[in-house]
Amino acid sequence: MTTVPSASVAPDQLAIDGNRLWKFLMDLAEIGAYDDQATGLVGINRQALTDGDREGRRLIILWMEEAGLEVSIDEMGNIFGRREGLEPCLDALMAGSHIDTVATAGAFDGCLGVLGALEVVRSLNDAGIQTRRPIVIAAWTEEEGVRFSTDMLGSAVAAGRLSLDYAYDLADEGGLRFGDELERIGFKGPRPVRLDSPHAYVECHIEQGPVLAQEGYAVGVVTGVQAISWQKVTLHGRAAHAGTTPIGLRIDAGLAAAQIIVEARRMVNSGEYGQLRATVGHIRASPGLPSVVPDLAEITVDLRNPDDTLMAKAEADLEEFFAALPETQPGLRVEARRVARTRAVSFSNEIQDVIDASADTHGFDTMRLTSGAGHDAQEMAAITPTAMIFVRGQYDGISYNPREYSTPEDCAAGISVLAKTMLELSA
Amino acid sequence: MTTVPSASVAPDQLAIDGNRLWKFLMDLAEIGAYDDQATGLVGINRQALTDGDREGRRLIILWMEEAGLEVSIDEMGNIFGRREGLEPCLDALMAGSHIDTVATAGAFDGCLGVLGALEVVRSLNDAGIQTRRPIVIAAWTEEEGVRFSTDMLGSAVAAGRLSLDYAYDLADEGGLRFGDELERIGFKGPRPVRLDSPHAYVECHIEQGPVLAQEGYAVGVVTGVQAISWQKVTLHGRAAHAGTTPIGLRIDAGLAAAQIIVEARRMVNSGEYGQLRATVGHIRASPGLPSVVPDLAEITVDLRNPDDTLMAKAEADLEEFFAALPETQPGLRVEARRVARTRAVSFSNEIQDVIDASADTHGFDTMRLTSGAGHDAQEMAAITPTAMIFVRGQYDGISYNPREYSTPEDCAAGISVLAKTMLELSA
Repeated sequence: MTTVPSASVAPDQLAIDGNRLWKFLMDLAEIGAYDDQATGLVGINRQALTDGDREGRRLIILWMEEAGLEVSIDEMGNIFGRREGLEPCLDALMAGSHIDTVATAGAFDGCLGVLGALEVVRSLNDAGIQTRRPIVIAAWTEEEGVRFSTDMLGSAVAAGRLSLDYAYDLADEGGLRFGDELERIGFKGPRPVRLDSPHAYVECHIEQGPVLAQEGYAVGVVTGVQAISWQKVTLHGRAAHAGTTPIGLRIDAGLAAAQIIVEARRMVNSGEYGQLRATVGHIRASPGLPSVVPDLAEITVDLRNPDDTLMAKAEADLEEFFAALPETQPGLRVEARRVARTRAVSFSNEIQDVIDASADTHGFDTMRLTSGAGHDAQEMAAITPTAMIFVRGQYDGISYNPREYSTPEDCAAGISVLAKTMLELSA
Repeated sequence: MTTVPSASVAPDQLAIDGNRLWKFLMDLAEIGAYDDQATGLVGINRQALTDGDREGRRLIILWMEEAGLEVSIDEMGNIFGRREGLEPCLDALMAGSHIDTVATAGAFDGCLGVLGALEVVRSLNDAGIQTRRPIVIAAWTEEEGVRFSTDMLGSAVAAGRLSLDYAYDLADEGGLRFGDELERIGFKGPRPVRLDSPHAYVECHIEQGPVLAQEGYAVGVVTGVQAISWQKVTLHGRAAHAGTTPIGLRIDAGLAAAQIIVEARRMVNSGEYGQLRATVGHIRASPGLPSVVPDLAEITVDLRNPDDTLMAKAEADLEEFFAALPETQPGLRVEARRVARTRAVSFSNEIQDVIDASADTHGFDTMRLTSGAGHDAQEMAAITPTAMIFVRGQYDGISYNPREYSTPEDCAAGISVLAKTMLELSA
């Protein structure tokens, strides 16, 4: 265990205990731990509504109660811990994240936001501070979406984007229903799932990307979440002998796939689509023999853009590019199927400014950045002013992997900023 | 059985019997026949030095002897059938091809050349014509190279490019040696394998490509065999999250692979490399997930060119392109390994002219074309004036497939041209 100095704070600041935060993070990481063959490290597999998730939830509730919070569970299994304010009738400030994980997780994704908010409450207790507004810590159900194939599930139902029935009827790969599994682990709570809008929502999360590390910041202010568009594109050509078939008579499905990949990058580099990101992660051609022109190629196209209009423009222009491909290879057939699509979310400028000012009082320089991944905060943004704090990740920001890591110092920095932000917003 | 009219010939021509030719083609096709699941057709699997090949060889020898030929077998199992000439001391005219097949073959690849030359001999017999020069029909061993992984093996040793020891020591996937298998089937002959140069060599073969069909010719004159270069190219990048990793920080192995595929086609279209053909048949990226930038991509690059100098230029320029790829993606590593390379072969202009003139006397228009695939004729071209006759294939010229097909009429046309050519060259 590294010894972490408590962030040094001016008198108007709240001093959090970095060592204590780290200890809770490591304790929670033991639930669902497994030996990861690929990395040789201990990974975490604590998928939603499994026995491991139940054990993790019980620990969170225990720790909330130890910190004096009043715990309630809603119909989606979302866990809320309330710390009363001086004016109990005011809308509460909410902070949180999730503790469910992917199958090969590290200790930080989600957990830092829940345990960080809990550390803030402990620090408030230690300092004898009572805030004007109530503070509620939320631990959302099935944020990852890996088990029931819809991410941000708990927060999406709480904020009203998805219905309770929709969620209950989702089944995992083994055919087990969400509603049944929620009951099985004893977390189908009595509290109505639809939330009244809180005063504001803040979430601290590991970045899961390399930007803060590359740019040299421990902490970042998140401006919003990108729109995401996933397509599966199948190219139908004609198999032909590489030696005997003249170029003009070919319908090369692999070439068409390559042209799409190169075009997607050209679009990104053109600057015409703002902060567009385009990724082709899956590429396959068949029959896959060196001397046979591919008759079939399959790729995925992942587009991300913080701007919905520019995203729509990128999608439309790419579709036009698909439609033009048979001009150079008559007979080519392009089959594009959209498999996922979410709109961009912009976080509250006011909350972002509060976070920035809070970092400033701690002497932390920050940068603003967009989130490439989805978060519960994007659901909450629909019903209340919301923003996020990102904490720098190590190893190129690797995530969904046991190598995921933030240093104790960076975790303490992020949660110090969260503390000051929560103090401001609940004042 | 379709009834095929004998090609109508002027008095100075040799009338071959198209029906007889077709019957022998279909009879030989019964040896090694199997029910092909993929096509629902009867295919042929008569790989070199198998029991099927032995049976086929015995039939060929029987048919040669029935046609009055003197049969000899050399140390490579190459079969020669000699028809004496009026001047036995003159160098013989040689015509031939092979009867070994790939695992999923049709009835024409190779067999048309051997049985066609035999039909020419029968027609000479029928017409009571004795040529000035001896005529030798050759059936070469292991032309396909599928069993012992070196194609044109029998003719390459006979013409001196490969040694007998090299051939004998080749083993199939089961570890069986070529030399042992040759002995096992009783075809290790006494005749020394190194050939004295014959007067000329001609080979009739199904095109195995779509050109003659597309251009509307039954028969083509082959100008040579392309140089072939095979490379396996592995791109080493860095895995990264599609949502969180800025474009500038990516090392996208899949993108680099796509850039190579597009560049190869650009080179072909540029015209700078003559009749270059470039094919990327194998494309694979890993980990292959929609939201992960590929850390690894693997492609094959198949280049063909009838001109060795332009082929070398294409290879060098592509290598330069590989070397420049890390400029736009620093950290990218390109690993290119050459897995096959043969030089271009140009056939004799004189023999091509004889073939053209022979077609003309039959009233067949012809076109000249390069062979995309390898043939025994390219080995013989090293020791004697050589050229080939191509016969139109159906179904886009599909080959290495039970759907491989030439019509009885087109086969008769090709062998009529072969007959007149052999008559001219043995006169």
